[in-house]
Amino acid sequence: MEMDKILILTHNLPDGDAIGSALALTAGLRQKGKKVRATWSGELSSCYHVLTDSYVDEDFVPEYIVSVDIAGTHLLPKETRHLGDRVDLAIDHHGTNTGFAKESLVIARSASCAEIVMDVITEFGGEITPYIGSCVYVGLSTDTGCFRFNNTNPESHMRAAQLAMLGVDIANLNQLFFEQKSRARIEIERRVLDGIEFTEGGKICFITITREMMDQTGCLESDIEGLASLPKSVEGVEAGITLRERPNGNWKISVRTKYLNAAKICSYFGGGGHTFAAGCECSGTPFDIKVAMVKLIKQEMDS
Amino acid sequence: MEMDKILILTHNLPDGDAIGSALALTAGLRQKGKKVRATWSGELSSCYHVLTDSYVDEDFVPEYIVSVDIAGTHLLPKETRHLGDRVDLAIDHHGTNTGFAKESLVIARSASCAEIVMDVITEFGGEITPYIGSCVYVGLSTDTGCFRFNNTNPESHMRAAQLAMLGVDIANLNQLFFEQKSRARIEIERRVLDGIEFTEGGKICFITITREMMDQTGCLESDIEGLASLPKSVEGVEAGITLRERPNGNWKISVRTKYLNAAKICSYFGGGGHTFAAGCECSGTPFDIKVAMVKLIKQEMDS
Repeated sequence: MEMDKILILTHNLPDGDAIGSALALTAGLRQKGKKVRATWSGELSSCYHVLTDSYVDEDFVPEYIVSVDIAGTHLLPKETRHLGDRVDLAIDHHGTNTGFAKESLVIARSASCAEIVMDVITEFGGEITPYIGSCVYVGLSTDTGCFRFNNTNPESHMRAAQLAMLGVDIANLNQLFFEQKSRARIEIERRVLDGIEFTEGGKICFITITREMMDQTGCLESDIEGLASLPKSVEGVEAGITLRERPNGNWKISVRTKYLNAAKICSYFGGGGHTFAAGCECSGTPFDIKVAMVKLIKQEMDS
Repeated sequence: MEMDKILILTHNLPDGDAIGSALALTAGLRQKGKKVRATWSGELSSCYHVLTDSYVDEDFVPEYIVSVDIAGTHLLPKETRHLGDRVDLAIDHHGTNTGFAKESLVIARSASCAEIVMDVITEFGGEITPYIGSCVYVGLSTDTGCFRFNNTNPESHMRAAQLAMLGVDIANLNQLFFEQKSRARIEIERRVLDGIEFTEGGKICFITITREMMDQTGCLESDIEGLASLPKSVEGVEAGITLRERPNGNWKISVRTKYLNAAKICSYFGGGGHTFAAGCECSGTPFDIKVAMVKLIKQEMDS
């Protein structure tokens, strides 16, 4: 690659895999003397500070654009959506990738995009430093729910062992990303549990997070990370749905399933994602959204 | 080993590592034509049924006694406590093992006892079948909090990768042991969160589980497994303490710490365990127990 000014894009509401992939690739390319800028919208939660300390923003006109962990251009944040048809390379692990980029490196079997990024860095002769390894571990561990979700495969564990041996402080990262809960999180969990709802004989479970609940508990975005996996975790639940009120009054819907195709369910609302973990955004009242979701989910259950 | 009738003991209130180790060793020894009986007190929670289906109790006078995951004879359940001075071999991963057995195989670096058992089975020429692998995975994954706790090391991940490649259905086991929460569990978590208490500027956190809460929510023992890690998970907490009312009116205390020596704290009450995860049993009112614990913990903090 002769291009020297590289822009890295990732998706809206970036998660650990998006951030970890973007930061790992940034550091890897800089080893090769490239000028790199990674962008995302919004503030990162405090646990990412462990990764972003060495991050320096560079301002330039990009010669080459790489997207990481993005399945389609509709998932770009509004700040970079105009670049959607200019992406040179998409590195991704979503089987639903729309092929929007000029070149695509999509490995759906990979539990995280960060693992693919690690192989790319090794491929172009970069060194996997403990810092890059930490970025990859954050991507891998957050996308597998710390090796708990059903996308965890032997390679995930091999990779984790390799990263730990490369000097990644997995104990510290696990503490930051999986062990620690803010007091605001504890408080909102109690409220969320107060409002938990079941239907279809306990096969569908809803939780709702309103702006008011966020305000009353003093929760930041980072405080509610991963809460969307709560409803699916209840015994007997086949589809766990989280409704989260957005500042613009719309609702961000997260769907987590055991057997049903969550990506297909969300696609009816213009969303997408993985087979068992997907999302979309809806307008309307929570009740109307829930009724519409139940109808779609029942349709999926019967098909 | 010429002995043909082997009894396997494990500790009181057996956890996943105790059960996984006992069942793996049972199956491994039976491959070699041994008669084996593994014993534990109490009912196992429903998720263990995936492991115990093929388990058949054999009645005999033991010629050889092996203990797994037991640090000292005081941790034996009352049914087998009389056998404490007759243990021929202790297989354990607790650095605090008292050396009570005639021979000891104690590897403190090992995140789980089940991993040591796996190596023992391989050593005597046994085959690690998917069933034995599943028992080992349950031990390894439950003792590391599914690779989240700070005892997780590169070997833990290598072992998990190896087990997955041997045909262990880690997705199914993770679902049973880590993903799934009963509705009773969801209900008791809400009540536990209602009663959460902090002291010492948020450095010590207490939760309390009474018999009444268990009865009102219909919780079984298995429903509250792992709940003791909740208080330590709150940001800023250095010692998380769980008080659980026992049927005899005593309180089972679980201490989880980030830096403090939990085993030392519990040893003042005749308990023990690992450096960062230990337990003991106390009589008295919850308030008096909490006051006594705070005093001891402050002493540890200052030392």
